[in-house]
Amino acid sequence: MDSLIHRLQALLRADQCLVGLDIEPRYLGDTMEKLSGALPLAVVRPESVAQVSAILRSCNDAGVGVVPQGGATGLAGGATPAGDCIVLSLERMRGVEEIDPAARTLTAWAGTPLQAVQEAAWDAGFFYPVDIGGRGSCQIGGNVATNAGGNRVIRYGMTRDQVLGLEVVLADGTVLTSLNKMMKNNAGYDLKQHFIGSEGTLGVITRVVLRLQPQPRSTCTALCAVSGYEDVLRLLQALQGSLGNALSAFEVMWPDFYELITTRVPGRPAPLAQGHGAYVLIEASGSDAARDQALFQAALEGVLEQGIVEDAVIAQSQAEARRLWAIRDGSGEFRSVFWPHVGFDVSLPAGDIGRFVAACTDAVRRRWPEAKTVFFGHVGDSNIHIGVKAGEGDQPTDDIDAIVYGLVRDWAGSVSAEHGIGLLKRHYLRYSRSEEEIALMKRIKRTLDPRNILNPAKIFEMQ
Amino acid sequence: MDSLIHRLQALLRADQCLVGLDIEPRYLGDTMEKLSGALPLAVVRPESVAQVSAILRSCNDAGVGVVPQGGATGLAGGATPAGDCIVLSLERMRGVEEIDPAARTLTAWAGTPLQAVQEAAWDAGFFYPVDIGGRGSCQIGGNVATNAGGNRVIRYGMTRDQVLGLEVVLADGTVLTSLNKMMKNNAGYDLKQHFIGSEGTLGVITRVVLRLQPQPRSTCTALCAVSGYEDVLRLLQALQGSLGNALSAFEVMWPDFYELITTRVPGRPAPLAQGHGAYVLIEASGSDAARDQALFQAALEGVLEQGIVEDAVIAQSQAEARRLWAIRDGSGEFRSVFWPHVGFDVSLPAGDIGRFVAACTDAVRRRWPEAKTVFFGHVGDSNIHIGVKAGEGDQPTDDIDAIVYGLVRDWAGSVSAEHGIGLLKRHYLRYSRSEEEIALMKRIKRTLDPRNILNPAKIFEMQ
Repeated sequence: MDSLIHRLQALLRADQCLVGLDIEPRYLGDTMEKLSGALPLAVVRPESVAQVSAILRSCNDAGVGVVPQGGATGLAGGATPAGDCIVLSLERMRGVEEIDPAARTLTAWAGTPLQAVQEAAWDAGFFYPVDIGGRGSCQIGGNVATNAGGNRVIRYGMTRDQVLGLEVVLADGTVLTSLNKMMKNNAGYDLKQHFIGSEGTLGVITRVVLRLQPQPRSTCTALCAVSGYEDVLRLLQALQGSLGNALSAFEVMWPDFYELITTRVPGRPAPLAQGHGAYVLIEASGSDAARDQALFQAALEGVLEQGIVEDAVIAQSQAEARRLWAIRDGSGEFRSVFWPHVGFDVSLPAGDIGRFVAACTDAVRRRWPEAKTVFFGHVGDSNIHIGVKAGEGDQPTDDIDAIVYGLVRDWAGSVSAEHGIGLLKRHYLRYSRSEEEIALMKRIKRTLDPRNILNPAKIFEMQ
Repeated sequence: MDSLIHRLQALLRADQCLVGLDIEPRYLGDTMEKLSGALPLAVVRPESVAQVSAILRSCNDAGVGVVPQGGATGLAGGATPAGDCIVLSLERMRGVEEIDPAARTLTAWAGTPLQAVQEAAWDAGFFYPVDIGGRGSCQIGGNVATNAGGNRVIRYGMTRDQVLGLEVVLADGTVLTSLNKMMKNNAGYDLKQHFIGSEGTLGVITRVVLRLQPQPRSTCTALCAVSGYEDVLRLLQALQGSLGNALSAFEVMWPDFYELITTRVPGRPAPLAQGHGAYVLIEASGSDAARDQALFQAALEGVLEQGIVEDAVIAQSQAEARRLWAIRDGSGEFRSVFWPHVGFDVSLPAGDIGRFVAACTDAVRRRWPEAKTVFFGHVGDSNIHIGVKAGEGDQPTDDIDAIVYGLVRDWAGSVSAEHGIGLLKRHYLRYSRSEEEIALMKRIKRTLDPRNILNPAKIFEMQ
């Protein structure tokens, strides 16, 4: 170990290689899971691909684990150091390297904050569509490593769908430069796919080439109330017919969520009465402001007339749109109105989500009659978030996990829709993936990282 | 070998295991490359996943290569048998198994023709957007294995972007069932990505789950003439601003192509005069026929007023739209007006395509002063097709390849945009992919197919 630290210190300046008490707490975990054991051996902050390569080569030679870190805004413990390891922060490899307007691409260093990517794209006349709450501090490399999702997946896809090229450093220090800018490239295996969403277990991403979209010129927003989940599905189908691909968000809030936010969070009054079966926040974006608003209005009138929607409010200004979004984004206020609780990010075949929510609520209430739940999420992408609060004070996390993940397994869903597996959901990976699938994941891990140094023990334990 | 055939004959009915003279010629190659050596040992036509698994296990035990075949409409020799091998045709595993309207997915057996997938989706009120010329005979499994592209990639992406789930049989017969229906699923590695576009070298796809799109309710079509490539790019940018994601095709024809089709192919008169710098076929699709046509018209008037477009014709009926498309689709008539020739499917960073076309034309003419060329393709996706005819009669294929692929390498392009590498482009793979990338491809191949039985010698040779 000591010789590894010496080797790293020889490669890097003192401020690039922190040890002992110089290691700031922010390196010790992500949003959800903090380090519980001894400090990492060092935190390294490389400033070039060559340095990343030299660090990995050294760690691989020494057989010491490396935990890659972006903005550490994750919710699954994926960036949390564990055991004797080196934390590799990408924070000093930041900045947009190039925007190619003809190719409609943006090339950025992995440590660039998402928001900086969004702003650079916008300033150049384009749009980078992925958006998540941590935009100011999360990093684009982390977004790629975890295949980040967010609100606009229904229209633009996840981070995977935005990535055209990657530069990755492999466990042995090999630099794999595939900075492709072309939408179509079928020359051999599409290697970048291996690294996207692999949570830093197969390589360290150093640069990314992203596809850019045309800027939307209009945004229309509405909140609808429907009688129940079957009408949520009818509404989605009707709007996809009338608005087509313009539909850019379809966020469903169950009554428990809606009531909690609009009655308990200050400054978020209910735009529609309590008591409906579900509430749906709808956004459409297009290229012609005047025409798009009229089309949106007509689409909403259509679903009201058909009786799919019981009540609706259409935002007439950006301020009104923000007020509607503030209800959905009220999940950011859980710390003051729904704490502590156990949170979930799961996906299910869309047709089953309504019955799943009912079954899940029942199962929780049978066990803890006083339990409170919240259900909300990106139903257009089959993804819901769940919060369960069995009672006041410390939560019986393992028991709640067992109930909810057990139902997800029974209903053929995924235990992680967008947050990843990290450390925290490893036990439940097998609820969503077969033995054969997990065995193949391990074969691939072994091939790309034979000494198991890259984010070891994340997603699954190697033995 | 004989014992393998006996084992296969024990697994299958006689009509499922053809040998010797019973092997029909259609199994002996794809559109471009026919078998040159001895007949395959057998052609097997399994009817279930269990049969595919048993066949692969037997071949793996025997160390005999297996060439998976879909509709064999490829252009790179990927489905062509080579050496002592078994051809595994998926043609008897066909049919749409399920359409889930709530999840907006279609599940089909690999041998289902693309057109049957498109029609089943449409009949259920949805749209499957990938479309290629071979739609009637190509199979969805082959589309996935080769990551098929086509004309609408600019809006909907390639086949990869449509695939939510896969069932794959690995070399040793392991059945990997990942029939995911959810748009978001970050539970561990996204294994299906390994198989998409790997041309049958890593596994045999048996079932696919595809994402469906809303049906477009309008289609607007126009042909524009511009002064040169810089204006092609300006036009693309302007239309992406005014039409946004409604733009569903942006097909460029250079003057050599346009003139050839409109003067030599009967029944395809020129809708716009000869002599412009480039011709662009534009299609937009949306959800409101009346409004969309007005918006499209306004967008076209805008680019005419700005001087980006020199002349344009907007289709006023479906028949007119078909006549405009018939010019672009005139490439299907090469056999009568441009034969023999050497064809290419390459991609290049979009900003460079104009200069690349000029450089490529020059290089060919310097070598063969009488040479004829055609350039056309999906510029919105950085993809162009090229035809080179050095003179009458047999073509100096290797010399033409060397010139064109050499330029693609120099301009940092891809030697295969959408057709794949197969047998025919193996030599040029290293023009577009680095040594490190190819080495990693081989490591992955070795991991998934240690005995090298799956479509051996395609994409690259293992040693």
